[in-house]
Amino acid sequence: MEKPPVAPIRLIRYSDGNEEYMEDLLAVEEPLEIRLGFGDKDNRQQQRISVTMRTPGNDFELALGFLFTESIIHSAEDIASIKYCTDLNSKENEFNVVRVELKENIVFDSSSLQRNFYTTSSCGVCGKASIEAVFQHCDRAIKSQFKVAESTILSLPLLLAKQQSVFTYTGGIHGCALFTTNGEFIQGREDVGRHNALDKLIGAIIGSNQNQFAESVLLLSGRASFELLQKAAMAGIPMVAAIGAPSSLAVNIAKEADITLIGFLKETRFNIYCGEQRVMRNSSN
Amino acid sequence: MEKPPVAPIRLIRYSDGNEEYMEDLLAVEEPLEIRLGFGDKDNRQQQRISVTMRTPGNDFELALGFLFTESIIHSAEDIASIKYCTDLNSKENEFNVVRVELKENIVFDSSSLQRNFYTTSSCGVCGKASIEAVFQHCDRAIKSQFKVAESTILSLPLLLAKQQSVFTYTGGIHGCALFTTNGEFIQGREDVGRHNALDKLIGAIIGSNQNQFAESVLLLSGRASFELLQKAAMAGIPMVAAIGAPSSLAVNIAKEADITLIGFLKETRFNIYCGEQRVMRNSSN
Repeated sequence: MEKPPVAPIRLIRYSDGNEEYMEDLLAVEEPLEIRLGFGDKDNRQQQRISVTMRTPGNDFELALGFLFTESIIHSAEDIASIKYCTDLNSKENEFNVVRVELKENIVFDSSSLQRNFYTTSSCGVCGKASIEAVFQHCDRAIKSQFKVAESTILSLPLLLAKQQSVFTYTGGIHGCALFTTNGEFIQGREDVGRHNALDKLIGAIIGSNQNQFAESVLLLSGRASFELLQKAAMAGIPMVAAIGAPSSLAVNIAKEADITLIGFLKETRFNIYCGEQRVMRNSSN
Repeated sequence: MEKPPVAPIRLIRYSDGNEEYMEDLLAVEEPLEIRLGFGDKDNRQQQRISVTMRTPGNDFELALGFLFTESIIHSAEDIASIKYCTDLNSKENEFNVVRVELKENIVFDSSSLQRNFYTTSSCGVCGKASIEAVFQHCDRAIKSQFKVAESTILSLPLLLAKQQSVFTYTGGIHGCALFTTNGEFIQGREDVGRHNALDKLIGAIIGSNQNQFAESVLLLSGRASFELLQKAAMAGIPMVAAIGAPSSLAVNIAKEADITLIGFLKETRFNIYCGEQRVMRNSSN
């Protein structure tokens, strides 16, 4: 049995001058290590890929989504198996190390681990170089030209909230969900790390072998950072809507990738930062 | 002149069926690379330490705070100079690479870059190992035993909000601030990355050579994660209050370090997760 995503905690609640000792639930945060097995049958190697602080649950999807959005794999077909490491002689990390075995014919260049989406060798680090580095791994332009109704966009936050079970209990977790262009819920995931929530979601979709990204809308429960837009670009998601604010670099990469980016999505309002041609607007369409 | 922390953006605002083309401000997100110069005069070396996505501004403090909370330096005294790299021949990253020169007598063990607070060699990765790893670098028990009045704690969010200039304009940035035990504002910082905001704040304090951590309260504008509590423990901050929820591992490390941890801090209420002896409570004190 995997570790649970929530943990009980004793606390003192102070409210309007009154105190109460009570029990509540917290979102669990635990490290997850991803190890990669690769190479020929006769020369099998292992490499530690990353350690991330995540909420337990959907760990295999997290590994799959992470490897995919980092360009280490290109589809679930590249993978022979995913399992928890069991050779660690420790109860406490029994479910904290995931080992992914690549198929023998899949080439893994361990120098790509030195990769840094933020930099290219030519010009040190800058926002422009960060964006260029992403497009070394995926198409620059997303071609899907569907339209989504304003009313559909406005309906998404409520649909995500209905799916966010850990948030309901703890108030302390990020969520994201993928919807069809008609606003039908496809899949959602939660995690204390927003990048992990999105990796889990992308991993779930590519693991199901039903790639619905080209005709989908991604909803983010918080803000839209460069890292989240980078993952959306890698997956080929044409529309991203965030309940919070985008950063400057998130808007820049969305423009380069031709992703429609919506921010500050509330019950009655939202901002369109780019890609407005995919929003079916009452006033102009 | 450093890069500005906000950038103008053209957008379409949809609200209750009406659309408006307008200009607004976004929080800027740009990569910052930290490079370390170390070694003897005759054998000076340079190593790239990290790249982080941050909001421009207070970059030297960010470098100082990062090196301190990662245990690479132990005080501002270890540093000979901090400046922007100017040998990169690129306008765009002119202010995106900071070079920190250690004094000649300061030993830098580059294998400590392999450090991972999340793991120890003995038992792979688990929450317990993550916490133990932190205490290899700092005292386990914070000894300050001041008391802070409930009314003082309740006053902090408004004091932080008054200082958050970038948040006011963009709604898209994390803030943190340090207060005295009487609720007087000492210093505050903002960033698109919550860990960067805290590194900037810690860097500002240690750079001023007035170490006020032992008698201070740290306020976080969002949630309290393991990483933020780890930095507070490294700095020796005895009380941390978050406007959002803590994670399970944040509570665990706060307990181990004897840090008072408060969460869900609103205008009239808060939760105390541990260290309640530092809260002067009307009902029991």
